[in-house]
Amino acid sequence: MPEKNQYLNPNFLKKSLSELNVSELFQEIRDGNIASLSKGITLLESDLDDHIQKSNELLKLCLPYSGNSIRIGITGIPGAGKSTFIEAIGQQIIQGKNKLAVLAIDPSSSLSKGSILGDKTRMEELSRMPDVFIRPTPTSGNLGGVARATKESMILCEAAGFNVIMVETVGVGQSEIELHYLTDIFLLLLIPGAGDELQGIKRGIMEMADLILVNKAEKENADAAKRAVKQLENAVHYMSQNKYGRFIHVDAVSALQGLNIQETWDKITKDISAWKENHSFSEKRKDQAVYWFDQSLHNGLRNIIHQRNDWQKLYAHLKKEIESGKTHPFTAADEMLNKIINGK
Amino acid sequence: MPEKNQYLNPNFLKKSLSELNVSELFQEIRDGNIASLSKGITLLESDLDDHIQKSNELLKLCLPYSGNSIRIGITGIPGAGKSTFIEAIGQQIIQGKNKLAVLAIDPSSSLSKGSILGDKTRMEELSRMPDVFIRPTPTSGNLGGVARATKESMILCEAAGFNVIMVETVGVGQSEIELHYLTDIFLLLLIPGAGDELQGIKRGIMEMADLILVNKAEKENADAAKRAVKQLENAVHYMSQNKYGRFIHVDAVSALQGLNIQETWDKITKDISAWKENHSFSEKRKDQAVYWFDQSLHNGLRNIIHQRNDWQKLYAHLKKEIESGKTHPFTAADEMLNKIINGK
Repeated sequence: MPEKNQYLNPNFLKKSLSELNVSELFQEIRDGNIASLSKGITLLESDLDDHIQKSNELLKLCLPYSGNSIRIGITGIPGAGKSTFIEAIGQQIIQGKNKLAVLAIDPSSSLSKGSILGDKTRMEELSRMPDVFIRPTPTSGNLGGVARATKESMILCEAAGFNVIMVETVGVGQSEIELHYLTDIFLLLLIPGAGDELQGIKRGIMEMADLILVNKAEKENADAAKRAVKQLENAVHYMSQNKYGRFIHVDAVSALQGLNIQETWDKITKDISAWKENHSFSEKRKDQAVYWFDQSLHNGLRNIIHQRNDWQKLYAHLKKEIESGKTHPFTAADEMLNKIINGK
Repeated sequence: MPEKNQYLNPNFLKKSLSELNVSELFQEIRDGNIASLSKGITLLESDLDDHIQKSNELLKLCLPYSGNSIRIGITGIPGAGKSTFIEAIGQQIIQGKNKLAVLAIDPSSSLSKGSILGDKTRMEELSRMPDVFIRPTPTSGNLGGVARATKESMILCEAAGFNVIMVETVGVGQSEIELHYLTDIFLLLLIPGAGDELQGIKRGIMEMADLILVNKAEKENADAAKRAVKQLENAVHYMSQNKYGRFIHVDAVSALQGLNIQETWDKITKDISAWKENHSFSEKRKDQAVYWFDQSLHNGLRNIIHQRNDWQKLYAHLKKEIESGKTHPFTAADEMLNKIINGK
């Protein structure tokens, strides 16, 4: 079996990424070689021109083998116990002969150094399991870029045979929306009695959830957890069913004591089956596909000037004209757009 | 003299906007007709296709007459007394035979209904002055759109002969960055002893300021104001000079009692003169021009698909293919981009 979660020296990686043969790498990923999968994801995250081209080749090869996993999104305030929860439910998941990949979106990690998955002491047991792949947060990039890299990483994981993918994000803002467009089921982790009833989680984020879990419902906290569940059920009661006809379900779990964890995994698989039956599963995937089309297009359009020599030249010329005050920025933008649209 | 600040019935405006003759409107604006200036700005804010075309024509006519004003940005937390301050310094400004326009960026106003300048009870005296034009916040749009409309409104105001333009924004986030790219000098209004020393104003915003004013330094608050100035001077001391070689200056004012208001206006005009001398004025304008070029370009590229029939058709076709699962979003985006770049 290949070595697990082997994070190579970045210098070595850089060198090997430029030298590597994409079809060989693809074959190794298809064979379930986790070191190669890891190398493939590092390739996706690179922004060197040469690597971008190779990434695209690799993605094209992997695409036909992607799409068949259950994609689970997990978010929650810092301290809600997301890692412990993933550790606990991860054990359940792989007992069912599944292969589990855990990815993370955390654009803040490069600043705070507190990467959710980079912390090696977390998910220690899970990370030693043979059918588990844990990928730390990319260390740089804006949210859009990180989310796109995660989307692409999922494709590689699926091609490598992982049939359950968990994507974790810290619940502090925009990243939940990306999570919604990445995953089939959305879990929101809260804790009992953390002061105000909604714990700083915005209504919009609660409305995206399929399953709200009050974690840390250890036996000694059972009453507080029950109250929190009741409170959340009341709050959720006034939210209409979402556009896929789903209602938000609230429950209490203890990742630490393993309470209600197996039942949660059972519920997830049952929900997914039901949604496949009533087509809400494919409806959501369809919306996501259109979203990623628009995102990719938008992303490509941002950099389109650099795709043609004549465009690049005109851009540089116009910029000079603007700096010397000969052209107004709006006039110059019109000229540039006209060149792209009408070729003149 | 034309009627001042005449906000016409929107229905009437809509009708007249479609019917109006752009070169006539331009001539009226050049003649300093304030009702026409107001109508021109309403035209800029409209997103009807016909109006967008007329806006562009109007802007092109006005551009050669723009650029010669002093542009002053004012931000601060709600309650810092921005309106009272503008009312007070505005009186100073027009005493010097200047023509003053006051614009606002407040993307939240359409939600909160608490438009900073829409409130008719504010700046009452100033709004009655003959050489003053006060424009309420646009009632809709995202921040980028509102900032662009403000940029365009400034061009019209300058063409109408306004040589001092104040742009006001509520200091609650992103809009200060837009303000920085719109104006020559950046004023941050704070109040003495509002609890924590930096009053929730982020360091990045303080660093953009040229002049930090502790307002509400009425005689009875003089000590508290002095302490606040001292505190802020200490904070600012550790900030390096900005890229234009400017340092942040801190001072106390009372807009209510007219204390240090004339001196503030004198300081602004002296600073502007000094910056024109040492070219930091033109350097900043140059950076702003490039910023607005990139913004306009980016804005145009977002909607470029709709500019050609064949592109629109391909987009619709690819969207269908994605929805039916025949194409992957990334592949489709590549195809669309390739069509735009290489025409095939």
